[in-house]
Amino acid sequence: MTENSANLRGAESTDDVRSAAPLKHVQTIDFVGPIVLELGISLPRVTCAYETWGQLNGDASNAVLVCHAITGDSHATRHDENDDAGWWEQLIGPGKAIDTDRFFVVCPNVLGGCRGTTGPSDIDPLSNPPKPYGASFPRITIADMVGVQKRLADHLGVKRWRSIVGGSLGGHQAMTWVTRYPGSADSCVIIASSPRLSSQSLGFDIIARNAIQSDPNFAGGQYYDKPQRPDTGLAIARMLGHITYLSSEAMADKFDPDRHDPRQIASGFEQQFSVGSYLAHQGEKFTTRFDANSYVTLSMALDLFDLGSTRLQLMEAFDEADSSFLVISFSSDWLFPPSQSRDIVAALAALDKQVTYTEVTSTAGHDSFLVDREIGQYAPIIEARLGKVDRSPLTLTRLEEFILSCIPSGLSVLDLGCGDGNLMAALRERGHEKLVGVEVAQDNILKAASRGLNVIDYDLNTGLPAFIDNQFDFIVLSSTLQAVANVAELFDEMLRVGKRVVVSFPNFAYRTLREDYVVRGRSPRAPGEFNYCWYDTPNRRFPSIADVMDLCREKNVTVEQEIYFDSATQTQIWPDDDPNLNAETAILVLSR
Amino acid sequence: MTENSANLRGAESTDDVRSAAPLKHVQTIDFVGPIVLELGISLPRVTCAYETWGQLNGDASNAVLVCHAITGDSHATRHDENDDAGWWEQLIGPGKAIDTDRFFVVCPNVLGGCRGTTGPSDIDPLSNPPKPYGASFPRITIADMVGVQKRLADHLGVKRWRSIVGGSLGGHQAMTWVTRYPGSADSCVIIASSPRLSSQSLGFDIIARNAIQSDPNFAGGQYYDKPQRPDTGLAIARMLGHITYLSSEAMADKFDPDRHDPRQIASGFEQQFSVGSYLAHQGEKFTTRFDANSYVTLSMALDLFDLGSTRLQLMEAFDEADSSFLVISFSSDWLFPPSQSRDIVAALAALDKQVTYTEVTSTAGHDSFLVDREIGQYAPIIEARLGKVDRSPLTLTRLEEFILSCIPSGLSVLDLGCGDGNLMAALRERGHEKLVGVEVAQDNILKAASRGLNVIDYDLNTGLPAFIDNQFDFIVLSSTLQAVANVAELFDEMLRVGKRVVVSFPNFAYRTLREDYVVRGRSPRAPGEFNYCWYDTPNRRFPSIADVMDLCREKNVTVEQEIYFDSATQTQIWPDDDPNLNAETAILVLSR
Repeated sequence: MTENSANLRGAESTDDVRSAAPLKHVQTIDFVGPIVLELGISLPRVTCAYETWGQLNGDASNAVLVCHAITGDSHATRHDENDDAGWWEQLIGPGKAIDTDRFFVVCPNVLGGCRGTTGPSDIDPLSNPPKPYGASFPRITIADMVGVQKRLADHLGVKRWRSIVGGSLGGHQAMTWVTRYPGSADSCVIIASSPRLSSQSLGFDIIARNAIQSDPNFAGGQYYDKPQRPDTGLAIARMLGHITYLSSEAMADKFDPDRHDPRQIASGFEQQFSVGSYLAHQGEKFTTRFDANSYVTLSMALDLFDLGSTRLQLMEAFDEADSSFLVISFSSDWLFPPSQSRDIVAALAALDKQVTYTEVTSTAGHDSFLVDREIGQYAPIIEARLGKVDRSPLTLTRLEEFILSCIPSGLSVLDLGCGDGNLMAALRERGHEKLVGVEVAQDNILKAASRGLNVIDYDLNTGLPAFIDNQFDFIVLSSTLQAVANVAELFDEMLRVGKRVVVSFPNFAYRTLREDYVVRGRSPRAPGEFNYCWYDTPNRRFPSIADVMDLCREKNVTVEQEIYFDSATQTQIWPDDDPNLNAETAILVLSR
Repeated sequence: MTENSANLRGAESTDDVRSAAPLKHVQTIDFVGPIVLELGISLPRVTCAYETWGQLNGDASNAVLVCHAITGDSHATRHDENDDAGWWEQLIGPGKAIDTDRFFVVCPNVLGGCRGTTGPSDIDPLSNPPKPYGASFPRITIADMVGVQKRLADHLGVKRWRSIVGGSLGGHQAMTWVTRYPGSADSCVIIASSPRLSSQSLGFDIIARNAIQSDPNFAGGQYYDKPQRPDTGLAIARMLGHITYLSSEAMADKFDPDRHDPRQIASGFEQQFSVGSYLAHQGEKFTTRFDANSYVTLSMALDLFDLGSTRLQLMEAFDEADSSFLVISFSSDWLFPPSQSRDIVAALAALDKQVTYTEVTSTAGHDSFLVDREIGQYAPIIEARLGKVDRSPLTLTRLEEFILSCIPSGLSVLDLGCGDGNLMAALRERGHEKLVGVEVAQDNILKAASRGLNVIDYDLNTGLPAFIDNQFDFIVLSSTLQAVANVAELFDEMLRVGKRVVVSFPNFAYRTLREDYVVRGRSPRAPGEFNYCWYDTPNRRFPSIADVMDLCREKNVTVEQEIYFDSATQTQIWPDDDPNLNAETAILVLSR
């Protein structure tokens, strides 16, 4: 294996490159019980270890809670230049997206872990003679972790977090916070997480626990006074976890080039292949810094997390949450795949919660949330959610002005293909409150989100399953119709979700196009949306105004308003002036 | 867990529902050595266990070799009504795709296994006192398994197999046969296999072996005389394998409904979730019928299989093979994903080997090759490859006749979007030998393959990476241009791979369309390829003859021949008679 391989980091696992040394800067607070846990057992007392950065302001309104993943800890970022780097170093710090010059950032170690907060390796205060909990540590849930964090918030004087931010298990904690404690946060940022584990992911966790618990050195969890610990089982669990944190593509990039040339390491595990020596190294290293009982405790808590499997169950779970939400997933994450984030978003959208969602294109798998390149992609959107909003003055196109004129003030609007959010920003200026955008281009999503708008990353070709019947007064579909494959289905979906639909589209029977076609004998082109070469146009549907009117008749759709205009002459064309010939662009208001 | 769950079968694992009882109908043959293995060690003797069905004919030309997967055995199908079902019961038998009324079918157990052929659990003839090989069984390769099968073929009097058919590790055996022993088979059927394992799949195998070998009861492989066997490690290995055989979607279907309601089974493994009790049950059951040393031996042989990672390496590997090939993959197989089968196909195609490829749409994951529904989909194409060819008389369309007229006899042709293979069949009748079709519709692939044609399942929007420069005299792209997204790239690709390109397309500037457009003011329609409604047409490009001519000029493409005709009047339009207005359809022969 090449020297480079030493730098390979599987990254729930960013922590893997860190030492097992005690953390500096850790503060602790003891909560004396009994502390009743969700499944009925009590703990007599709980110590909570945490780190903080920045200063809490006078009205305690600038506190941000950061929740770590399963094998993470409180050291999210460095405290000073001499400090070790943290696991979210690129995201948190002075001038960074989570700006410690502006925010009071708190990161607690979780209950059940082994990095400061009470867990199975700590002494059971009720034992005599004193001995660690071991297997007698109660089964805990994520709600129990969050319960301890709530006590910490009370201790710190934080009544409402500016934001609760977490990735993976940290995302599950964030969701638990806002569903268990409505009113606890302005915003909730859920990264690479899910409403519950897929059965596949659950299966991997179960195998990992079976490997630990069937290691003879596990001794039913009471191994602390034994000469041997269940290192073999824990290492196997870690190897397995590691594969699930990476994508197949990322593993190919890392291990294919030197597949048959394993790094020579001291290990009892197989070292036939480079990927094998790497996994063995990572697995064995993990045993020097993590406790097997903690791993079992935390992974079981993760597996028990279950907001439900149906839209209705998820809606019930989030019903009382009053935060705004930012949900981020990664295209190559197969442990918590984007489809699971979309389920969360669909429930939130159906509940009219403020929600922005983006799927970051990435090859790094679940680990993406900890990888610098991907952090670089999603950090700006977190920064926007934390209040850094672009309020540049707006310039509206003529088309946008016409569309605005069709929408009575104050009504709710869903803008499909919202681009950079210009129209939505104009609607907001006019006082509309309930505004949601849908967009697929990541740069546009970022721009719209940076304006403080709610925008959802969503492919219109799959219909509008995120939204419920009559959820919006108006749906806008502007300059997008001609690029959609499933036009008829989208029409039905828009008229299901919106009371009225404003659709604007370029008219394919416009005089200039007809002339171009007849005169040149070529696929028609004219300045505007149809100014593309036939073989690389993004358009795939070429309707005239008459075509769309036909479709409306077929579907029993009422055309309530018609606006036509000609950009070339900057004139509006009236309905009795043959718009199908004379208008370049049509705006129709439809209802059913 | 519901009673239904008892029927859940993860299916490399179809074997899981079978007893561990000794197989009836097994024959054995001893080969006395020394038998030199690929990695240099010798075995003094090898017993090969196998089963046969049907009768070998007089010239030994009807023998079919069936190769089993990693935990399979020789019992591929039943021998009579009272016999146990086999693992490929639906594929093999009287009147089935592999028809035991016509073929002499042979299925040997593999070297290194534990179901009859010599493996680690057998007595080492050189030991004194006699004891099983255990860990002293040499490391073997798939070539060694195939070497034993070659001796079996010699024993049976089979010089050339009619076909060698295998799925998963069976596919790797089939590839090894035809690459190591050119001339050994008329056809090679490779199902759910790969040129080598992905690093991800390799990682899972390594973890499985680590679990077995670190089980204290493994005792370095010398456990046969011990009271305990490494059942825990083997069970964990099996659980892990099981997940990789299923897709996430299949697991959701199976385990989501009763996730928190595990079946009560006697097990030391965790049983908190239904998927957990299922995996525990499958894992423990496996230990009653399979030997841990065999599992390690066979999975290592699989992992060492490596035909290369580049096209050139794969071309070198297959260079001397003289079989025809049928390659089958499954869309949801993530252990041996379709991209790996496409790599095999690309190498074979570049070598001008006879190859047909289909990707079966399936949710059953890697297991698909053993699942009845999916067997139902791919069995007909195997039947065709084994010689059941449809030679119905051909009826050609006028368009097809014109295209045929452009292609001088005897030249090689690649037909892109070949449909049911009608044009290719006509070319074959005319004596063309090198003919390859490309198609994406599964029903068309089956129809073309049933005609004995070679057709490759392939998306034209990704270019033509399976083919090399100037590989064909002619490329045909008939009535497909208007449905392709990346037209310009495809033009370049066609002119790279073919010396000449025959492209036929409907003319969007045809008089009837122009009239329809001008008169009706609607997206033009006319009988033929453009007779679709604007919102659900499969077409996405709308070029006129003049447009395509423009593109040819831009790309410095020479138009060598032009044929235009009008279906409505059944007349040919001459180039000086304004075909861009008068011709409904154009056929151009292009070169660069």
